[in-house]
Order: sequence, then structure tokens, then C-alpha cells
Amino acid sequence: VRETDLLRRIAERSADLPTSFPRVLVGPGDDCAVLDASDGPLAVTVDQLVEGRHFEPGTPVDLIARKAVARSVSDLAAMAAWPAWGLVTAVLPPGYAHADELAAALAAWGRSWSLPIVGGDVATGPAGSPIVLTCTAAGTAHASRGPVLRSGAQIGDRVYVTGRLGRSFPSGRHLRFEPRIVEARALADALGLALHAMIDLSDGLGIDAGRVAEASGVRIELEASSLPKNDGADLDAALGDGEDYELLLVVDAGARPPILPCGVTEVGRVVAGRGCVVRTGTGDSVDASNRGWEHR
Amino acid sequence: VRETDLLRRIAERSADLPTSFPRVLVGPGDDCAVLDASDGPLAVTVDQLVEGRHFEPGTPVDLIARKAVARSVSDLAAMAAWPAWGLVTAVLPPGYAHADELAAALAAWGRSWSLPIVGGDVATGPAGSPIVLTCTAAGTAHASRGPVLRSGAQIGDRVYVTGRLGRSFPSGRHLRFEPRIVEARALADALGLALHAMIDLSDGLGIDAGRVAEASGVRIELEASSLPKNDGADLDAALGDGEDYELLLVVDAGARPPILPCGVTEVGRVVAGRGCVVRTGTGDSVDASNRGWEHR
Repeated sequence: VRETDLLRRIAERSADLPTSFPRVLVGPGDDCAVLDASDGPLAVTVDQLVEGRHFEPGTPVDLIARKAVARSVSDLAAMAAWPAWGLVTAVLPPGYAHADELAAALAAWGRSWSLPIVGGDVATGPAGSPIVLTCTAAGTAHASRGPVLRSGAQIGDRVYVTGRLGRSFPSGRHLRFEPRIVEARALADALGLALHAMIDLSDGLGIDAGRVAEASGVRIELEASSLPKNDGADLDAALGDGEDYELLLVVDAGARPPILPCGVTEVGRVVAGRGCVVRTGTGDSVDASNRGWEHR
Repeated sequence: VRETDLLRRIAERSADLPTSFPRVLVGPGDDCAVLDASDGPLAVTVDQLVEGRHFEPGTPVDLIARKAVARSVSDLAAMAAWPAWGLVTAVLPPGYAHADELAAALAAWGRSWSLPIVGGDVATGPAGSPIVLTCTAAGTAHASRGPVLRSGAQIGDRVYVTGRLGRSFPSGRHLRFEPRIVEARALADALGLALHAMIDLSDGLGIDAGRVAEASGVRIELEASSLPKNDGADLDAALGDGEDYELLLVVDAGARPPILPCGVTEVGRVVAGRGCVVRTGTGDSVDASNRGWEHR
């Protein structure tokens, strides 16, 4: 499949976008897509997926496409933004046989999370180059709460996580996780300005909680015994495996998060200081700011 | 340089963005950037640059970064949109020594074209993977003309190109071209709704004029003797070399484009039919719809 043919097929497949998604004024097929942006500030992010790095060679095309889109949608969730539109790119090895299937899967997963794919680019890499996908995602900020940043944690706040943590890679969950967009909106709806800070757990609870602590100028103390763990996950896995794509939220002590089907568990507190520590059963506090899957 | 360190440096370098660019409400460093989008429809595009494909191994880092940003900005120009913000990604080989320089260059070239880089992602590829850069660019549609699409050409219109064509690769111009954002705005300002259609010439005049013809349901007839050529370029080069990143514009016959420093040359007409043909000195019409650098 030649690239122009592929891009044309994507454009044809997306011909209904301006009808189905009123925000899309011009869909794929021109030099740019054109979007109505009159419904408030836009949260934007881009993430990439590299073969041999974020997925193993031989992973089904549908799951590669799913993860590429889901990672960016998860970044929107971390802001409590609602998906608006996306752009994708792919570098494919010469003679790659599944280009059309991949393009269809990217578009389908985008739609499944309210993220119409309004454009993109496909290139053939040199021989031996890994598959590289990117997904740019734009979302509208929560109407009343606004974008939820990492920097809003305050001393005395309580720290929660959605779902359960650990063993995302060995269990295959890193390919099938559900980005928490609905949960994030429910949290922002219910908590409003008491939802002080949020992040999605991509690199590991220790590192990501450390990022919230650093951005907010505080320390986060996690309780080891409180961490919700997936089957087979120990403390190290829950703290450091990464790729959970659950939300960590920091909430005013005077408020309580709503009940969500995925579960919302209190895991710690915000105190004065720096970094992220874990308090173990023996009463020790162990630095956790480096516990995670540091991208190198 | 670890990726998180690199992303942090990019964020630090961009700390002034919300001050210098009022549209940037939250710059790099959080899960998403946040943009004010209240000034009208947004034109968005993404392009990628692959080592061994769009640039030779060993090309200076500054020129790689320049081309990655310039290609996307050129897509905004093709719509007569004005740059608003951008996102970049990079896949780098293991141990790549110039990551920080590359990030700085991407940010600097973005700013030089009014495209503040508000976020991005860096990943290390497996051994032997090519450098892959992407640039997502968003721009605001021209306030009075609106976005200029490929599909507006009408029978009887005149066809023009900016600048000169051909030999972009051998001359090195593909690394140093100036995206025509100022020219596009001037054209939209002066011509208004008489500016019927526009495209940037990335793949070659023949192919790209063919795209306008196809999108508009018309035929474009080019005059071989009229094509403005770069030094050393013959007709084949002007028609098919690609990577010129000049604008092709289609204008109502009752209007004339303004004079621009880069030159605006009438090269043909819009007639009934399909595709793009070139009329040679002998009076023959030769199909040109496939004359260009077809991406495979």
C-alpha cells in the first residue's frame, strides 16, 4: 500500500467526522484539519509508542493501535479533560503488510474514546526500523473545575489512586487498560476545586507521586499497607512496575472522592518536605521517588 | 541524558511561554499543555521526519530540527492559518549525544515561526533505529478568509506558485526553506474569498496540483514555459523534484495576487476535466498528476 493511498483510505473512512463530531469542521484529507475550538481551553498532549520499547515485536496490530491512542487519552484524563480530537503518525518498516489494518484500528480506538482522528502521517522507515506510532490528543478542559494540574497538592491533603497497581506488563494489561476519562470527569464533577492535583500513573507510583510532590513543592507519604495491588503484585510491583495508567489524585482533607466502579483507595497524605516516601509496616520511611520505570 | 531530565530541561527552557505567548495557559511539564482557543477555528496538522528518508544520516542537528518544524508550519501556511502552538516527539538511537541540542533547536525554530513548543515526548529506540521526529502544529484560521482548502478551485480560475521550483534536495534547500506563512497571510488578506484554493508543494508540482484538481473536481493545465525554476532545474525538476514547500494558489480570474518579495508566478489555468496536465512548447498536453516524489 502506498502512503498516499493509505492516507486517502483514512480520509475516506473519516468522511462522516464533520457530521458525527460537530467540532470537526474539516476532517482528514487536506493540508490541515480544521476544528471548532469555541468550547473553552484545550488540553493537548503527544505520546509515542516504539516497537521493542513499549510493545514487543509480534504484538497484534489492534493492540498496538489501542495502546498508542490510550496512552494519550490517559494524559487527557490526568487533567480531567474530555477528548476532542486526535492526530496520529506511523513509521512502518518497508513492505509492512498491515498498514491499512493499523490505520483502521487507530481510527476505531480513537472513536471509542470520543477522540476522532482528524489527520495523520504515514512514512516508510529504512530497513530494520522499528514501528513508531504517535498520537496527539486534544481535549476540552472540565467546564467548572478547569484543567487539573500536578502542582496543586497542599499540605494536609489526602492522596488516592483509582483501580489497582502492579504487574501491568506481565499480565498484558498495558495493552488493554481503560483510560480513566469517565472516572476523571466524575471526580472533577463531584470534587470540584477540592480536587487539588492529578496525574496518570505511567512510569510507576513512586516516580509519578514524586512528580506531583515536586510540582507542588510538598512531600507525599504513601502507606505501604494501603496500596491496592493487582493479583500477584507485591509492594515493589505496585510502587514501581509502571504502565498502570490509573489516576493518582490529591484531594482536600475536607472532601471525599465519590465511589467509582474501579475503586478509589486512600493511599497516603501530603506533608511538608520534598519527594515521595513509603511508610512500611515497621514504621520506616523509604524514599520512593525513583521507584518506577524510568524512561532512558 | 535521561529522558525525564531532557523533558525537564525543555520545560525549564519554556518557562516563559505563558508570558510571551498569552495563548499558552500551561506550558510543558504537566500531563498536558493547556491553550486558550478562543480566537477562532484551529487548523491542525502533524508531519514526521525520518532519518534516511527525509534527511541523510549526519545532517546537522539544527537543520533536522528546522526541517521537522518547518514542514508542519508549511502545512499551516497552505491553509493561510497563523501558527499558534506545537508539540514535538523524537525517537533517538541509544546513547544519542545531541538530545539536548536537538530539543533546544526544536524549541528555537518553533519560536522563530511563532509556534511555541508546548510539549512533547522523547523515547530511546532499539539499537539501529533511525531518528524519527514529529511536529504537530496548530494555527488559527485567517480571521476574514477562513481556512483555505484544496477543494475550492473553479473552472476559469488562474493558478500561481510562489518562489521557484526544483532541485530542493541537491541544493540543500529542503533543509533551509522558509515556510510561506507571511506570504499566505498576505495572499489571504489581499485576495479574500477570491483566493479559492491553496496547497504547499511538498511532493512535487505535478502530484500536488493533481491533488487540488482532484479535491476540486476540475483539471489543472500548467504551461511548461511559465514555470519559475531554480538554478539548474529543468522542466522535470520543477514538476517532480518535490520538497519545494512553495505555495500553489488558485485565484478567481477577476482578481490578481499582490506582489510578494518571493515572487508569485502565473503557471496555468483551471479547466473542466480531471487531473493535472502540462502543455509543452509543441502544444502537447502531458499528464503530470504523477510527477513528483511519491511517498512509499
